[in-house]
Amino acid sequence: MSTIQKIILDNRPQGVATVDNFKLIETPVPVLKDDEVLIRHHYLSLDPYMRGRMNDSKSYAQPQALGEVMIGGTVGEVIQSLHAKFKTGDHVVVMGGWQTQSVVHGDTPGAIRKVDTTHVPLSYYLGAVGMPGVTAWYGLVRIMEPKAGETVTVSAASGAVGSALGALAKSRGCRVVGIAGGKDKCDYVVNELGFDACVDYKQHKDYLSLSKALRDACPNGIDAHFENVGGMVLDAVMIRTNAFGRIAVCGMIAGYDGAPLPMTHPSLILVNRLKVQGFIVSEHMEDWPAALTELSQLVTNGKLKPRETIAQGLSNAPEAFLGLLKGKNFGKQLVKLI
Amino acid sequence: MSTIQKIILDNRPQGVATVDNFKLIETPVPVLKDDEVLIRHHYLSLDPYMRGRMNDSKSYAQPQALGEVMIGGTVGEVIQSLHAKFKTGDHVVVMGGWQTQSVVHGDTPGAIRKVDTTHVPLSYYLGAVGMPGVTAWYGLVRIMEPKAGETVTVSAASGAVGSALGALAKSRGCRVVGIAGGKDKCDYVVNELGFDACVDYKQHKDYLSLSKALRDACPNGIDAHFENVGGMVLDAVMIRTNAFGRIAVCGMIAGYDGAPLPMTHPSLILVNRLKVQGFIVSEHMEDWPAALTELSQLVTNGKLKPRETIAQGLSNAPEAFLGLLKGKNFGKQLVKLI
Repeated sequence: MSTIQKIILDNRPQGVATVDNFKLIETPVPVLKDDEVLIRHHYLSLDPYMRGRMNDSKSYAQPQALGEVMIGGTVGEVIQSLHAKFKTGDHVVVMGGWQTQSVVHGDTPGAIRKVDTTHVPLSYYLGAVGMPGVTAWYGLVRIMEPKAGETVTVSAASGAVGSALGALAKSRGCRVVGIAGGKDKCDYVVNELGFDACVDYKQHKDYLSLSKALRDACPNGIDAHFENVGGMVLDAVMIRTNAFGRIAVCGMIAGYDGAPLPMTHPSLILVNRLKVQGFIVSEHMEDWPAALTELSQLVTNGKLKPRETIAQGLSNAPEAFLGLLKGKNFGKQLVKLI
Repeated sequence: MSTIQKIILDNRPQGVATVDNFKLIETPVPVLKDDEVLIRHHYLSLDPYMRGRMNDSKSYAQPQALGEVMIGGTVGEVIQSLHAKFKTGDHVVVMGGWQTQSVVHGDTPGAIRKVDTTHVPLSYYLGAVGMPGVTAWYGLVRIMEPKAGETVTVSAASGAVGSALGALAKSRGCRVVGIAGGKDKCDYVVNELGFDACVDYKQHKDYLSLSKALRDACPNGIDAHFENVGGMVLDAVMIRTNAFGRIAVCGMIAGYDGAPLPMTHPSLILVNRLKVQGFIVSEHMEDWPAALTELSQLVTNGKLKPRETIAQGLSNAPEAFLGLLKGKNFGKQLVKLI
């Protein structure tokens, strides 16, 4: 392992992203400096936000630099350490990027975190007990503020964020209804994740049709919604919101490629006195400890059973990522690197 | 004055509202029952929300009933009273509707309120020191939560809500930028109302052009916005919002007639982590006393100089109302009934 395999952003997408935007390269493993740690990655996380970074446009974050390793969350083990707090064999979470190994300074705030794999599998720290889980927690607790008995909906319900959202909302006494694509995912959402119902958006050609299905699944209307998708799903949900509904906006995956997706009926924000609020979980680090504690307990108690789709090997990361953008994954999308 | 002139909703608009939707009728003045009060209206308030009520569709309020007097806020004087708290000559605010006189029960909560016209002209209780003023106060204080030094924008800036919003935001140390239609209104917003700048949306054919003008008027971006209009104005403002911007949604006047107006870039809610929240001021009666006190002081101290457009006589109310929907009024639209 004297070299590191890396995937860099070679060129920016013109419209739809393709595998040709990426390039696999190999570089020598650097010699560690004082207080640095070398990590061998076991898993790389693939997430929709990466698509936004591939564009050279204004967003909440800097664009991914051309020619640099694609950013991404990773879990792995320490294989060399010049920092007193870390030793060989430690399991850690780092923003290691699309590569087989990475070097971090052990004192950089938030850059490296040791994790306990006694009750929680290592890969879960990229999903249910990691950034996606905390994302669900923040949207639910800080924006949706659900009360027991209320109806809560979430799009991309079978995914890492959606499944965590469901478990967190169920534990607060809510009726939880998922929205997902396909019968398999909907069955999983209800039978494995314990949602009260799940609506298959692929059965509906437009938002009005989807909205009718939501009416049947949510006979008391929708009090709070977690949006991972945008477009037709959000349009359909908005029609079913109750007065004073809250919508946490976490993702607009359908709009990353191509033309902007409008919101069809923004006047519903007024008519139903909605609060629609966007957020980025990395801006709320103060909430992470409480969120991770609750998520870890839900996993340990079997209340949250995340599902993973695992691609094998770094060279398959681009294709797995493009599949994720099209909803081909089922649960948290990972790439296994060892 | 043995009869009351009334304007009823005769039929519902098919698309654009017309004067033919209304009908003027005359009925006898009823004999008062115990604790009732008869009020002669001096002014009727015309407001955009009335257009929504004319449709037979789901909204935050019941539709205006066909054949009934159009609802509306009025100010006037008591001309007969069988209630101990009210005497002839008292100035009062009542939801009297589009008619020359009305009868209210003196004990109905919120139905009738005595006002002091020593420092505040009677008609202002329908504008700056009435529902529109409180609307501005609620949106600003409860949703926009401005900090000194922040940039605040408001559409329909020369209107009753907009002018109050400007004065309230200035008194909190904000940079206040209006959006209004036409040079006269923009000059008034800056020179009379004391806004820092005003952008004439009629000079711009689309939201991208308007957005560039907003960039010049708001060099530090937009931290909080009060939306009275919707459509192109909201699209343009959203592009200029800063991270964690707050948008209070009070009106979507441009969408009342005809087709729904989409929001072009809802993904900005995520990118800029916006909070977009709709509200109806009548649902927050607990805030009215504090709001009215502050608004009354601003008027008394000359910090808020509202402008009024006054139509003469009840029979002209429909035409004045249709003009209001097209932005023909300049300041608070009233109908003088005496």
